[in-house]
Amino acid sequence: MSNDCVFCKIVANDLPATKVFENKDIVAFLDINPASKGHTLIVPKQHFKDFNELPSDLIEKIFKASKKVAKATVDAVKADGYNIHVSNGKAAGQEVFHLHVHIIPRFKKDKVGLKWTHVEYAKDEIKGVANNILKAFEKLLN
Amino acid sequence: MSNDCVFCKIVANDLPATKVFENKDIVAFLDINPASKGHTLIVPKQHFKDFNELPSDLIEKIFKASKKVAKATVDAVKADGYNIHVSNGKAAGQEVFHLHVHIIPRFKKDKVGLKWTHVEYAKDEIKGVANNILKAFEKLLN
Repeated sequence: MSNDCVFCKIVANDLPATKVFENKDIVAFLDINPASKGHTLIVPKQHFKDFNELPSDLIEKIFKASKKVAKATVDAVKADGYNIHVSNGKAAGQEVFHLHVHIIPRFKKDKVGLKWTHVEYAKDEIKGVANNILKAFEKLLN
Repeated sequence: MSNDCVFCKIVANDLPATKVFENKDIVAFLDINPASKGHTLIVPKQHFKDFNELPSDLIEKIFKASKKVAKATVDAVKADGYNIHVSNGKAAGQEVFHLHVHIIPRFKKDKVGLKWTHVEYAKDEIKGVANNILKAFEKLLN
């Protein structure tokens, strides 16, 4: 537990939250500042600052739980679809540094946003990027 | 395999793609219309139309692979962070109906977008939504 982490406090019931799912490893609760009604955050009970730090067994557990929570939430709010979204790092929009998975119910013609603009690769640039990723994999394995 | 699915064709090497990771279950390749350079799609080789259809063993495999691909990609393009993003259903922005996980490298002050607007719950509305999710869980378990 991290003493100044709001999600650790929610896990420990030291801060109130509207929980919708809990097991020995995971808690899910409604985001109080939601992108859409039913927007849920799924967190491991143990403190990990981001997805890079999340161990394999919890990756498995948290995304299996995400599927259940997403299906129940879509049913509950009569949504037409959903997004699963993780922000890793401040540049990616992460605001609370306790890993959390967003489940965001989506509706036809909603105004949620969550779109992206596009960039273009220069000729052959994509091959260079791919080569750098392959080299980075080698470093990760060493 | 679905005959008219572009991602099945990429898996089968019937369509070209810049692959950066492959094992017996999964392929990762660079998005040709990227949100940022290094934007990668991770797909199961077997055809599942969306995350709702993805079996548990593949949920585990695909998100463990996502962590490795994300780390390698961030290193390769010198990004400051990344998003993991899944769109389930047309209303959520899904365009290719073969489940895929987006890894989107993010940079300080980039113009990717991928933000959301907020809605507000009326007084006590959040409790009603939570109750409906809990009821939906019960239906899922039956």
